[in-house]
Amino acid sequence: MKAVGIDIGGMSIKVGLTENGKILDQIRFKTLLDKDIDIQNIINNVQALLDRNTLKAQDLIGIGVGCPGSVNTKKGIVEILPNLNWENVNLKEILQTNFNVDVKITNDANVAVLAEARYGIAKDYSTSIMFTLGTGVGGGIIIDKKLFEGGKGLGVELGHVTLVLDGEPCTCGRKGCVEAYVSATALIKQTKIAMQSNPDSLMWQSVNGDISLVSGKTAFDMAKANDKTAIEVVEKYVSYLSESIMSMLNIFRPEAFIIGGGISGEGEYLTSKIIKYLEKFEYGYKKSPKTEILTAKLGNDAGIIGASALFE
Amino acid sequence: MKAVGIDIGGMSIKVGLTENGKILDQIRFKTLLDKDIDIQNIINNVQALLDRNTLKAQDLIGIGVGCPGSVNTKKGIVEILPNLNWENVNLKEILQTNFNVDVKITNDANVAVLAEARYGIAKDYSTSIMFTLGTGVGGGIIIDKKLFEGGKGLGVELGHVTLVLDGEPCTCGRKGCVEAYVSATALIKQTKIAMQSNPDSLMWQSVNGDISLVSGKTAFDMAKANDKTAIEVVEKYVSYLSESIMSMLNIFRPEAFIIGGGISGEGEYLTSKIIKYLEKFEYGYKKSPKTEILTAKLGNDAGIIGASALFE
Repeated sequence: MKAVGIDIGGMSIKVGLTENGKILDQIRFKTLLDKDIDIQNIINNVQALLDRNTLKAQDLIGIGVGCPGSVNTKKGIVEILPNLNWENVNLKEILQTNFNVDVKITNDANVAVLAEARYGIAKDYSTSIMFTLGTGVGGGIIIDKKLFEGGKGLGVELGHVTLVLDGEPCTCGRKGCVEAYVSATALIKQTKIAMQSNPDSLMWQSVNGDISLVSGKTAFDMAKANDKTAIEVVEKYVSYLSESIMSMLNIFRPEAFIIGGGISGEGEYLTSKIIKYLEKFEYGYKKSPKTEILTAKLGNDAGIIGASALFE
Repeated sequence: MKAVGIDIGGMSIKVGLTENGKILDQIRFKTLLDKDIDIQNIINNVQALLDRNTLKAQDLIGIGVGCPGSVNTKKGIVEILPNLNWENVNLKEILQTNFNVDVKITNDANVAVLAEARYGIAKDYSTSIMFTLGTGVGGGIIIDKKLFEGGKGLGVELGHVTLVLDGEPCTCGRKGCVEAYVSATALIKQTKIAMQSNPDSLMWQSVNGDISLVSGKTAFDMAKANDKTAIEVVEKYVSYLSESIMSMLNIFRPEAFIIGGGISGEGEYLTSKIIKYLEKFEYGYKKSPKTEILTAKLGNDAGIIGASALFE
């Protein structure tokens, strides 16, 4: 049966019509950062999508939504979307009132892992864990092919597990969280610090001498070009990430661990380094049931596919 | 229906007859540290327990077993019990052959959390996490009233999550694991180090000047007697434990977090300090769904009750 998946992002919103994990049609529009207008645009574009596919809402199994923020999944209330200025929006009620079909809402990391576990890189595994490495670090947990969203649907903040007691300050108010070491934001900070102590690093050339242009790719790109400082930044980052992953392996012993988010663009260059790091340890990796370390593959489609998969 | 629960420990083994979480009868015998004799004694004592209650094995719903070590729960194979010199024992097959009833085997931390979640301190909650703080740190996870044992039944090693990157060496081969900071073994080490730099501490009197007598209670007892050094040891230990717990809260957002194992004898003196520490944080505690921080209450009965509860 067909479903509609809605992928709400800070820059744009996408509404897609899907069937069994395939996107049949989609509409993308800009986020205007006015809550009421953005919600009305979602409603209008879902209707437009249905109309141009000569469907009625009742033909759908449901409408699924992924949001970049905190969601009470049981109640369907979007609690906070910091980048869109939403607070306590009962989006489930709004959409159900307009379309008279079932609606499910969760956060974007949950949607991403669900997409990969059902239709993407982890579709052959029953228990999968995912880190989405972007501005922050999102987490997703699939146990026996089902999404685990934590008590009251508010858990699974895998980025807010301690990695370094009393370490770098984290956005959550604690210190030393995984997010403060392995997000793209953290990698950019680590890259800048290394550049400042190494004026001869190739990384300076790669940003034309303008440190404000450093991205999550800078250190990786110049490590591939054999720059010593960049290699050091990448190796340190890999150690932070691998230790964070090892903790998850010891908790869940999943069949698959998936790297998603912007940093996952490094693909096998990154996962091969992670595997090499993990293989140093008998316990938790080598002598434990093997966990495949994988890169997310659905990319920008994961939002729509995963949101629909809340029903599939 | 009645079940038999078997609690295998390093010092003694208990076999108990239960019904709905109540122990009707039990037999305890010493562990002789000879694998074959210990297994034969288990079989003989289960039979004796059945005989004196005029029951046949077929009257049981099953036989459940909790072991202090690594178990492949899917296959029912005890992989390693370091304190009993067992390696790769197919205990499920042995017991099924002898009694012709269904047998389930898991590790002692899983048994402990199951007992507390079904019949103990957490029986009113559906999602609970437990640390057992003893020689090592065991972990147990209950999701929707069901035991989660990790992929292949080999996960849930909550003691082997990083707390301090590159910190204290851990028995697992990594550095800085939760176990290396919050086990009773770690607390004893922390206590001794503090005593060595503080010859005037009351803790010296409490062990009659013999540092080898330090236990997991020494610092707690003397902190209650207002010894400054002991208070510092306890406060530091509480911070390690609370940070470790907070990571679990952010992953699972459980309704209940249970402290078990020897250290849990400190009861509310300990849990009140943990709650005070956690309350410093908006995110993950105060502004999140509240998690009750509880002390295990079934004590020595948890092994039998939890083992039986694998069937109840």
